[in-house]
Amino acid sequence: MSANNNNNTPVRFPKKSVPKGPNGDILLAAERAKATFNVKDLTRIMYSDEYLRKMETILKILENEPAFDKSDRYHQGRSENFFSGLWKDKRILELIEEHNWDEEDLKIANFLYDMVTPFGLHYDMFIPTLENQASDEQKKLFLEPALKHHIVGCYAQTELGHGSNLRGLETTATYINESNEFEINSPNMTAAKWWIGGLGVAANYAIVIARLITNGKDHGPHPFCVQIRRLEDHKPMRGVIIGDIGPKFGFNSVDNGFIMFDHYCVPHDAFLAKYSQVMTPSGEYIKPPNAKLAYGTMAKVRAHIVLDVCTVIARAATVAVRYSAVRKQFVDASNPRKWENEVMETPILDYTMQQYRLLPAIASAYACYFTGQDMIRLFDINNLEMAKGNFLADVHASSSGLKSITTTMAVSIIEDMRRACGGHGYSMFSGLGMLYQDYLPSTTWEGDNYILTQQTARYLLKTYRNVVSGNAAPSEYNPTVSYLLQYLQNPNAKCPGETPFDFLNQEMIISAFGFRAAYGIAKAAESIDKQGRSWNSMLVEINRISRAHCQYVLVRTFFVSLQNDPRFTKPENVALLQVLRHLACLFALYTIEQELGEFFTSGYLNSDQAAMLKDQVIALLEQIRPNAVALVDAFAFPDYYLHSALGRYDGKVYESYTRMSEGEPLNQRQVVEGYEQFIKPLVHAGLGSEAKSQVSKL
Amino acid sequence: MSANNNNNTPVRFPKKSVPKGPNGDILLAAERAKATFNVKDLTRIMYSDEYLRKMETILKILENEPAFDKSDRYHQGRSENFFSGLWKDKRILELIEEHNWDEEDLKIANFLYDMVTPFGLHYDMFIPTLENQASDEQKKLFLEPALKHHIVGCYAQTELGHGSNLRGLETTATYINESNEFEINSPNMTAAKWWIGGLGVAANYAIVIARLITNGKDHGPHPFCVQIRRLEDHKPMRGVIIGDIGPKFGFNSVDNGFIMFDHYCVPHDAFLAKYSQVMTPSGEYIKPPNAKLAYGTMAKVRAHIVLDVCTVIARAATVAVRYSAVRKQFVDASNPRKWENEVMETPILDYTMQQYRLLPAIASAYACYFTGQDMIRLFDINNLEMAKGNFLADVHASSSGLKSITTTMAVSIIEDMRRACGGHGYSMFSGLGMLYQDYLPSTTWEGDNYILTQQTARYLLKTYRNVVSGNAAPSEYNPTVSYLLQYLQNPNAKCPGETPFDFLNQEMIISAFGFRAAYGIAKAAESIDKQGRSWNSMLVEINRISRAHCQYVLVRTFFVSLQNDPRFTKPENVALLQVLRHLACLFALYTIEQELGEFFTSGYLNSDQAAMLKDQVIALLEQIRPNAVALVDAFAFPDYYLHSALGRYDGKVYESYTRMSEGEPLNQRQVVEGYEQFIKPLVHAGLGSEAKSQVSKL
Repeated sequence: MSANNNNNTPVRFPKKSVPKGPNGDILLAAERAKATFNVKDLTRIMYSDEYLRKMETILKILENEPAFDKSDRYHQGRSENFFSGLWKDKRILELIEEHNWDEEDLKIANFLYDMVTPFGLHYDMFIPTLENQASDEQKKLFLEPALKHHIVGCYAQTELGHGSNLRGLETTATYINESNEFEINSPNMTAAKWWIGGLGVAANYAIVIARLITNGKDHGPHPFCVQIRRLEDHKPMRGVIIGDIGPKFGFNSVDNGFIMFDHYCVPHDAFLAKYSQVMTPSGEYIKPPNAKLAYGTMAKVRAHIVLDVCTVIARAATVAVRYSAVRKQFVDASNPRKWENEVMETPILDYTMQQYRLLPAIASAYACYFTGQDMIRLFDINNLEMAKGNFLADVHASSSGLKSITTTMAVSIIEDMRRACGGHGYSMFSGLGMLYQDYLPSTTWEGDNYILTQQTARYLLKTYRNVVSGNAAPSEYNPTVSYLLQYLQNPNAKCPGETPFDFLNQEMIISAFGFRAAYGIAKAAESIDKQGRSWNSMLVEINRISRAHCQYVLVRTFFVSLQNDPRFTKPENVALLQVLRHLACLFALYTIEQELGEFFTSGYLNSDQAAMLKDQVIALLEQIRPNAVALVDAFAFPDYYLHSALGRYDGKVYESYTRMSEGEPLNQRQVVEGYEQFIKPLVHAGLGSEAKSQVSKL
Repeated sequence: MSANNNNNTPVRFPKKSVPKGPNGDILLAAERAKATFNVKDLTRIMYSDEYLRKMETILKILENEPAFDKSDRYHQGRSENFFSGLWKDKRILELIEEHNWDEEDLKIANFLYDMVTPFGLHYDMFIPTLENQASDEQKKLFLEPALKHHIVGCYAQTELGHGSNLRGLETTATYINESNEFEINSPNMTAAKWWIGGLGVAANYAIVIARLITNGKDHGPHPFCVQIRRLEDHKPMRGVIIGDIGPKFGFNSVDNGFIMFDHYCVPHDAFLAKYSQVMTPSGEYIKPPNAKLAYGTMAKVRAHIVLDVCTVIARAATVAVRYSAVRKQFVDASNPRKWENEVMETPILDYTMQQYRLLPAIASAYACYFTGQDMIRLFDINNLEMAKGNFLADVHASSSGLKSITTTMAVSIIEDMRRACGGHGYSMFSGLGMLYQDYLPSTTWEGDNYILTQQTARYLLKTYRNVVSGNAAPSEYNPTVSYLLQYLQNPNAKCPGETPFDFLNQEMIISAFGFRAAYGIAKAAESIDKQGRSWNSMLVEINRISRAHCQYVLVRTFFVSLQNDPRFTKPENVALLQVLRHLACLFALYTIEQELGEFFTSGYLNSDQAAMLKDQVIALLEQIRPNAVALVDAFAFPDYYLHSALGRYDGKVYESYTRMSEGEPLNQRQVVEGYEQFIKPLVHAGLGSEAKSQVSKL
């Protein structure tokens, strides 16, 4: 070990130092040897060979691109973080050219880079809004330069005082007949557009959602495409104030911004006129033909949210599971393991409590995978049906509640996984801290998770009333009607389970979820319709019925997919199917356990059955345990993507962790700035005293 | 509004702009007018007049101290954050002198400043360890200079590979008889001391916990006081490597560090010798007389943790409740409110769902207040009893589980409160993000929250066996024995509640919690003792019984304190007592609702009763609602402490929020760095094309 280094010598770990054995690579190899199914088969089924090949190619490119280097990511402050995002935004345009990337390649690159950037909303909201809402002429005007990045846009809807309630927006756009312009104005401080990604610094255009006023009449919120900065020098246009809203809990690589308009005039062209129109110069307003057209897109967005949840949970579980196989703590006296003839501490993955924390998370990831896939399938069917005039209301209504329940679940699981990593989970190098910070807003945006459940619940109550009055028939695309009918046929039904083994029966499990959901819906309908309780006083129950319904959907879809999907039912996949069925059972039974109160309240389950169910959960943990590492490996997240010392594929946790800590800016010299000013005066005051001679003995 | 500003003009909101009315000050005044009790009375009872006077005085001093200024706190990166902590550490020593502060003054100043600093562990662990474990001679050698800050210390126990399992520590301290020295060594990378607060940069001394080896025999972990940096120039001593472990999820103002020892020799003096000794030069080891002595202190630390939880929850609730009174969203059609003759949107505090999220949090804060207070009372009694040879095992055992359950609850409530603030909760200016980040490690340190519950459960199982075998008698200080006896007398007892009103009966509520805890303990004892299940396979149940017992303690203590504490039972406090009793009921019933499955499983509660209980929860929300703001005001947190735009006492949320965002570094100029390099080339490429002429029309 070196010592008394030159002050500018960075802090380095001794090269020869290695962790106490057995090291992580050995432990992970042993885990992988235990798997009962072929990991690669599962990976291929989930992603397709082509996708995996693409990912490999792109990964190699990014790992050698300085603009995509992640080694400073956890050390960067707000501004550095933001500029590295801008650099990536520019460089990726060049990479698209250089490598002739298609849209999927680009998606993969963004996925691997794994950090939101200032141009993100330009692609995700500005361009799609123009594609959907601009007239052909406006597409030439705005969309074409946007696609070439000659203009950079954002999407300004939310205001300082208004989020969920679109109708409460304060910003106005008043048509001035004389000049054929719109005057955009922020009448109050609370009218400031706020939280707008890309607006704070990067964008020179914005889609602004403002209340359209023509001839003194308010037509409610409409989208306008508005220039906000000068193209020559990027300075704000006269009449607007633009800034960044400041630091956030996460997402700090994006310039979420604000803008206020002071009677800012824009040409008639700014009003996006594909669906509604404002006539020139009369100001006559022409309504859009059909407001429901937007629904299909929104629901598909939600299917992708559920698939994202799968990725997020799987990622957090990958880190926690691999690290739990490597991290040893205490000796399990009932089952001591040996290493090089000495008793070794037990890898924490062997503790039942740790399994109880980790394995349901893995099961949740797969539950979201199957549900997300199924939602996409149903929306594609929906689009075909809509052409025939049918609308799959069930799918659409479930999608709100599913967005709510799965994103809430994802956030909570990331944190569970972080905590399951013990103290080191708190280091940014775990990779879980930033994931949590950046994913967290998903519970609030794209519909606040509490508000959204009201949409699902409204549909469920309406369907219930229809079923009661005989106006609803069950169909392949409407399981809700089926479980409601089943409940109404026998509202006093009891769960038939008599042994722990019975609780592996998928029909029985699905029926339990259906009964519990139906019971809640029936009770809520009764409170509202018969007891006259107000919607507001029922909000707690309303949230519960959406939750119960969506858990039904998740559980049913998991089982039914395994039963129907030809990719899993092939004879050569029998071992794989077995593992996935165990996961489906674990997901379902663990969920019942978490919600036991409701299953009891419905009268369906009794306490003997609850005890059997709990025993079955513990039995399932034991059965799934040997496949724990294989089941997270199957998601095939590259180390570059995970960027986690604890979750590396090779298990070299401590080597990676110490290497990452060498990068800490405070470690670039032996004595840091601040010593002279704040520490030296205190310590040197003591050097003259008698304490010195004794102290310096050491 | 100004426009086309000079590039160096910072972004500023227009001065005349105000939020849409009614503004927060008006709404909060209306809330305060609704309170049914005198807020100041409650504040005085909780803190004492003297404490409040001190706080006021110190607050005025700190608000004018540049070293205590918080305006950059949410903008600082890791290093700036760290240096501002060092500045505070130095300045506070001067303030102590200038204002002749006593220990309580200092505590108040640290509380108000509200950020951990590099010297924190010097005070919290280094000095106390020397006080408790150093011999008189060693106190002169180490403690005296430490008190004068001539040396700055830290406490190095945790290692890279070992947290909870103290016995697994790898660092050794081998006695060298020849030189009368100890050779401290880190045999592996995983032996590196890790996470040590103050070590990375600031400390020049460390208490190092190492396995003492004398004459070839390993005596297990013992504390050594070791110099690690030179006092002259702060460079690391020869034979040690010191560094900062890198960025963390929070706590970034502290230099959590690592240290590795390469056969580093320290004098015999370094071994802290108050209890155990190593004889010179024989190396004979003399054991400490009684290992249990440390228990009293540890348990008292936990009482303070529970009181901290009260503060943390109350703080988060203060922000969320005040902001929910100010934030308006949607019009509640069933109960529309008016302002200046127009229908106004409804303050979200009026929505039942929001009350269901906020009011149980307030109740939890008060539950922790009463339990923390009671723990301190019991530990004081315990200390008297220990002198007589008695040890209040119940208090000590509960303290582990209470630490676990309350800190877990605190973290979860901070996040609930953050989410209850909607989108703006995600801004650092909410004040909740940093609170969450910094408080989070409490679930892991001072005993991992899962591991700790095993201690409590072990005691509960032992007590159960004693009760069954007739070897335990109930006592004032052992409610566990009482509820176990009650259960054993009638293990088939049923809850007698027949109306929602019955669920306000405190005896009935306490019995329900006792029964449910006893049932779980009895079942677990049966599984282990009769069915021979291993401890490992029972860990999930073990966690549950600790949780059930601690919820019993929290609920019982809340009710019993209100009944017995003369401060609350005075006739003039009848209105106050009424409100607190409602809170106690809400806390209890809400907890039952969350744990309904267990109450059902025990067979004590049936589903009709569950429905009554739920109705009673909603009724309690309505009763407590008018006092919501008053109940958080009572905690009397100054705005300087909260440092939250959303939680200000005056309700001027939007004014404060926009002002804070003006401080964002990106807002100090109109066009930021990075524009020239990353944005301009893209946009200017379009200025020559035909797009330009159309675009520039705008």
